[in-house]
Formats: sequence, structure tokens, C-alpha cells
Amino acid sequence: MKSERVSEQTTKRLSIYLRCLNELAAAGQVSVSSEACAKRFGLNSAQIRKDLANFGEFGHRGVGYNVIGLRDHLIRILGIDRQHAVGIIGAGRLGTALADYYRVLDSNFTVVALFDADTKKIGKKVGDIEIFDIKNFAVDAKHVKIEVAVIAVPAGEAQAVIELVESAGIKAVMNFAPIRLRVSPGIKLKSVDMTTTLESLSYFLANNSQ
Amino acid sequence: MKSERVSEQTTKRLSIYLRCLNELAAAGQVSVSSEACAKRFGLNSAQIRKDLANFGEFGHRGVGYNVIGLRDHLIRILGIDRQHAVGIIGAGRLGTALADYYRVLDSNFTVVALFDADTKKIGKKVGDIEIFDIKNFAVDAKHVKIEVAVIAVPAGEAQAVIELVESAGIKAVMNFAPIRLRVSPGIKLKSVDMTTTLESLSYFLANNSQ
Repeated sequence: MKSERVSEQTTKRLSIYLRCLNELAAAGQVSVSSEACAKRFGLNSAQIRKDLANFGEFGHRGVGYNVIGLRDHLIRILGIDRQHAVGIIGAGRLGTALADYYRVLDSNFTVVALFDADTKKIGKKVGDIEIFDIKNFAVDAKHVKIEVAVIAVPAGEAQAVIELVESAGIKAVMNFAPIRLRVSPGIKLKSVDMTTTLESLSYFLANNSQ
Repeated sequence: MKSERVSEQTTKRLSIYLRCLNELAAAGQVSVSSEACAKRFGLNSAQIRKDLANFGEFGHRGVGYNVIGLRDHLIRILGIDRQHAVGIIGAGRLGTALADYYRVLDSNFTVVALFDADTKKIGKKVGDIEIFDIKNFAVDAKHVKIEVAVIAVPAGEAQAVIELVESAGIKAVMNFAPIRLRVSPGIKLKSVDMTTTLESLSYFLANNSQ
């Protein structure tokens, strides 16, 4: 299998293909053509073939892709053939909702700890996930082997938090704070801003209604 | 006040500026320069001035922007000077976590209803938000005046759901299902895919560790 690095957009599409294959596998389907897959999930069949070709020969002309086989390949390519420990920083509404969501999600991302500065929260649990003191982040993050940090603190605190995360040696960060963060090279930062997204919908509604 | 339409990226930045101004207002700050604002929140001061200039003259040379005044202007520009009713479709883990999150968020988006096809869920409540039968979506959505639909169903069901949303006359949609959806012109669709985001971090970790 070729293992060359591919673009962010390709990775994103692989992730979508994986979800489609999971659905097909759950429905008991054995094989699928790129055309059938594209049609069913609103994708582009030529793009599917091109993306998969980056990683070797998976399909068979006239037969299509083996659903389980391709799914397992994608799982390995995406690095989700093993568990990743996730730490959520900020045990407010969003942080605890995320903890609750990921806790029960059947995924390879396991939330192992929450962190907060509020002494009233420290030591309490969300489900079975303990809230730790952010002051001891570096030590505790290493102890529970956190690989992915999720930032769910207010905008004004997020930059300080990401610096703390970086100094703890964590390389992958998902940011929910509505602010652009500065990170060092070698750190992968992904931002999800739900309020900003809602507000852009609001702007659309305010400026496009008759 | 000029009210010309601006780009998606500008809207997104206005939303971020608003959050910064909210923080400054909460801290009791009366005025702020674009430079101080940029420095504190990791933004670009020239960009701030340019973005705001789209909507008229807000700042005063040497004094900066009036925090409360500018905040209130941005609130009006973004159309969040009034409540928007949000309906969440899919009362699974994500849908209920989102309902829980938005329910207590101090924002202008109010979740007024959840919808699901599962008869065991219909009629139950998440906090004080009732779960309605998706079968009666068009009628119930109109009744509770839903303006923004949030899609939190599995990928395979999302296209059918968005067609239902469109036919109910809803123009603004936020999609959490990990799939690209086809919409008619005149519909504003924003997608947030948390699993895909996590998987792109996972790909990074799998391919960048030594």
C-alpha cells in the first residue's frame, strides 16, 4: 500500500467515504461501485476513484469495491485502527456536552479527562470522566496519555490554553472557542465555531428576506 | 448606516469581533482601538478597520471604538437583535447534546423543537424541548416558526431530511451529518462535521509521528 501524504481535503473525503462504507456494511452489502456509492451519498464517482488510487488498487472493474475490505483499509489509512485519548479543556456547557457526546459515540476517540480552573468543578465527574485541575495539566495529560486536546473555553482564555497544550507536547488540537489561535509549526489545529456558524445564518436571514 | 452585503468571511469575522466586544463590555471597558483589540484577540487591526468600514464610520481617531455602541451595531448587522427559532432534526446523542447546549447558551438562537422518526422518542422532552414526529415536520415547523433547521441525523438520512426542510420553506440550515448535501439556490447551508475533523487530526497523528 502506498502511504504518501495527501491533502487535508482528501483526508476529509476519506473520512466521509468511511462513514458511507460503515452504513453499507451495516446493511449487509458486500460490494459497491464508485458510481453506486456516489449516487447514494451525493458524492463524485471520479473523485472517489482518484482519492482511493492514492493508496493503491482497491477496486475491481465490473465488481467494484469490497465494502469490508475497503472500510478496513480506510480505517488504517486514517489512523483510527487504535484508540486516541482526548482531553477536553473547559468543563462548562460546551465542554460537558462534548464529553457526553463523545463518551457514548462509537468512535476511536475516547475522552479520558476534562480540565477546568474552577475549584468547585475540580474532582467532580461528567459521566465517568473526571474534571482535573488545569494547573496540573502537563502532568495529568501525560499520565492519561492525551493525544488530542479539545479547547472549550471562552475566547479570551483560548490562546493561553493552547500554549499550555503545546508545552505539554500535544500535537493535535480541536478548538471550539470562537477565536483564531496562533500555534507553532508542527501542531495541527482544527477549529469548529458553532456560534459563528449560526450567526452567519442569522446574517443571511436578516439580509435575504423579502 | 450602509447595509451592503458582505462576504461570508467578513460575516464570520464580524461574529468574532462581536464576541471580543462582549468580553470587553463585560470587563467594563468603554472604548478600544483596533490595534488593542487585534493584539488582545489575535486579530489583524487593518482587517478590523476595513471590515467595519463596510458598514459606516464607527471609530474615532485617537479614541477608538465605543465598545457598547459598536457591539450594538454588530448585533443589528448580524441580525441577532431578535430571537431565531431553531429546530433540531434527529434526537439521537448529537441532537440532544446540541439541544442541551443551545438551551442554556445565552444566545439569540432558541431551540424550540426536536424532531425524530423513532416513535419511542416522540412526545418525550430534552429539558423543556419536546420531541415531535418528523412526519408532521412541515406543519409543526410552521407552527413554532422555525427559521433555522439543525440536521443531526445519520449521513444516509440527511439528504431526505434537508429536502423536507426545504419544502417546509426554511432557508437556513446547519448540518452536522458527515455528508455533502445538495440544496436549491436560495438556501443557506452550513456544515459542521466533528467526526471528520477528529479523523483528520487522527490522520495527522498517524502520519507525522516519528
